[in-house]
Amino acid sequence: MSDNRTELSQLGEFGLIDRIKSKFSITNGTTLVGIGDDAAIIDAGEQAVLVSTDMLLEGIHFDLSYMPLQHLGYKSVAVNVSDIAAMNGKPEQIVISLAISNRFSVEAIDALFEGIQMACKNYKVDLVGGDTSSSTSGLIISITVLGRAPKEQIVKRGGAKTNDIICVTGDLGAAYMGLQVLEREKQVFLTNPEMQPDLEKYEYLVGRQLRPEARMDIIHELRDRNCLPTSMIDISDGLASELFHLGKHSNLGVKIFEDKVPIDHSTYETAIEFKLDPITCALHGGEDYELLFTIHPSDYDKIKNHPDIHFIGHMHKDPDQHVLITKQQTEVPIQAQGWNHFKGQS
Amino acid sequence: MSDNRTELSQLGEFGLIDRIKSKFSITNGTTLVGIGDDAAIIDAGEQAVLVSTDMLLEGIHFDLSYMPLQHLGYKSVAVNVSDIAAMNGKPEQIVISLAISNRFSVEAIDALFEGIQMACKNYKVDLVGGDTSSSTSGLIISITVLGRAPKEQIVKRGGAKTNDIICVTGDLGAAYMGLQVLEREKQVFLTNPEMQPDLEKYEYLVGRQLRPEARMDIIHELRDRNCLPTSMIDISDGLASELFHLGKHSNLGVKIFEDKVPIDHSTYETAIEFKLDPITCALHGGEDYELLFTIHPSDYDKIKNHPDIHFIGHMHKDPDQHVLITKQQTEVPIQAQGWNHFKGQS
Repeated sequence: MSDNRTELSQLGEFGLIDRIKSKFSITNGTTLVGIGDDAAIIDAGEQAVLVSTDMLLEGIHFDLSYMPLQHLGYKSVAVNVSDIAAMNGKPEQIVISLAISNRFSVEAIDALFEGIQMACKNYKVDLVGGDTSSSTSGLIISITVLGRAPKEQIVKRGGAKTNDIICVTGDLGAAYMGLQVLEREKQVFLTNPEMQPDLEKYEYLVGRQLRPEARMDIIHELRDRNCLPTSMIDISDGLASELFHLGKHSNLGVKIFEDKVPIDHSTYETAIEFKLDPITCALHGGEDYELLFTIHPSDYDKIKNHPDIHFIGHMHKDPDQHVLITKQQTEVPIQAQGWNHFKGQS
Repeated sequence: MSDNRTELSQLGEFGLIDRIKSKFSITNGTTLVGIGDDAAIIDAGEQAVLVSTDMLLEGIHFDLSYMPLQHLGYKSVAVNVSDIAAMNGKPEQIVISLAISNRFSVEAIDALFEGIQMACKNYKVDLVGGDTSSSTSGLIISITVLGRAPKEQIVKRGGAKTNDIICVTGDLGAAYMGLQVLEREKQVFLTNPEMQPDLEKYEYLVGRQLRPEARMDIIHELRDRNCLPTSMIDISDGLASELFHLGKHSNLGVKIFEDKVPIDHSTYETAIEFKLDPITCALHGGEDYELLFTIHPSDYDKIKNHPDIHFIGHMHKDPDQHVLITKQQTEVPIQAQGWNHFKGQS
């Protein structure tokens, strides 16, 4: 290590990515879009190949004390598929690298692959390769997904125009509240192992955390309705963070309305129970894997009756203004409070 | 964990891969070849896209006490590029997932990316995406590489015919001996930290371990000479293990000659110094990342004068016979002694 030591926490995840990105340039003609969107875009004739990758680590991204291995397998594929969905593409292949310590049995790895298989079947994705290795500590799953889309159908983060309508699918904050519930039950169990967790009341929230779905259904439905979003991203880090990405890439501001942000009643009630503000959970809770996208106002009629698409605001021309209009009609700035993975780790 | 617990070590790495492979089928028309070769093959019109992935873990694949981060970055790209070379493809894009504990400074990560950048430049590969995360233990690097080749130029493991000549590039066993030297010096240093390691004599071997090159030069030269191998694989696990792969996929046996196997004089001398048999190091030492391929006998004249290609034997029709003819003209069976990553780990 040199004398000048800069901590990773000073830079943060996005700072690190920007630093890396600044050092690399594109030299191959087939690289259409590199670092910076949900997936890279590679030339393949009339079509383009989309590539995205995600790594999940035990102790960081999942806790096997409450995450069944089947669910983990399913989720690890779903979060990758979600990145292809966010480009308006169709996922087709995955490769999986796995590091396993010998506390895992063959049966445990079978359970993991049952979940992977179920997700592959559900999303019509082929497992085409990978790498296996031992691990001195926990389980590590690294997946790269390849997708495909006709070039003119690809939707990036940066295509929104002023007055485009901001849409979000499903509901937000549920996966985050599910995690809070699971963490609380774990603490109860650690204190008193005879206590059986009562999760029935929180079934929806826990399910959203343990077994999220990529919204490929929405991608197909938008296509059926001939509605091509102008920009799109999947919500992995939280609505606020993703809104900032859309704004930054489109060089616009965003205005959203608190009363339009979809929050399930159980998310709402559980947030109150945990003394958390529901809108904060929806804005900053991650891992919902819903889609956030913008449409041209003329496309509104095509999807206005869709039961699972919500219209939460619009893009405006000032790229420095990202605002939330509260239920009390107050305008408050949205904070780009993402997660800093590098803080407080040892 | 269930009552029936099977240890991963009972299955081994290849057993685990076979077990996984048997559960997955291919459903997408664009998946031309899935699990089982150096890279998967994906349809992209006249061309095919090749995909391969490798994960490197601290404490398993590298030891930062003697592996400089620049070299690690370079090597992590090179080993992936090598898989594309082994398909007779041209590497074009990589995505990198990185897990980093906060014992690493920004400057350390910069050093890692300097090596990655150098390799990207050298192999003309674009870094197009990735994922960063914190790690509770060591450094983890997972890379997926995309390559490209005209479909009729792709060389698989399974195309060899009886009497095809078995060729190997460079020399073998050097990376393994380099590792032995580094491990010995580490032990000396741990016993007496004032001892300065004297690595000059072993410079070639250590270099082969720390900074291997993918043999893209050979791929280009074979193309220039209009010589298309009938089967090919890169030597990551050791010559013996890779010969078994070629034999199995081509449904043939292999016969090689001990005196034809290329071993550098420093590998030879250092093996003797370590009381190891040089041919065993060449057969079973991994990480040389040389190319092993077969050619039709009619192509021999095209490459017979190439200074870095060695002709070590030929394929024969009995798939159950893999033999080495020793310098004493004795025929001995080749053992498929790969590495079992799952043995002896905690």
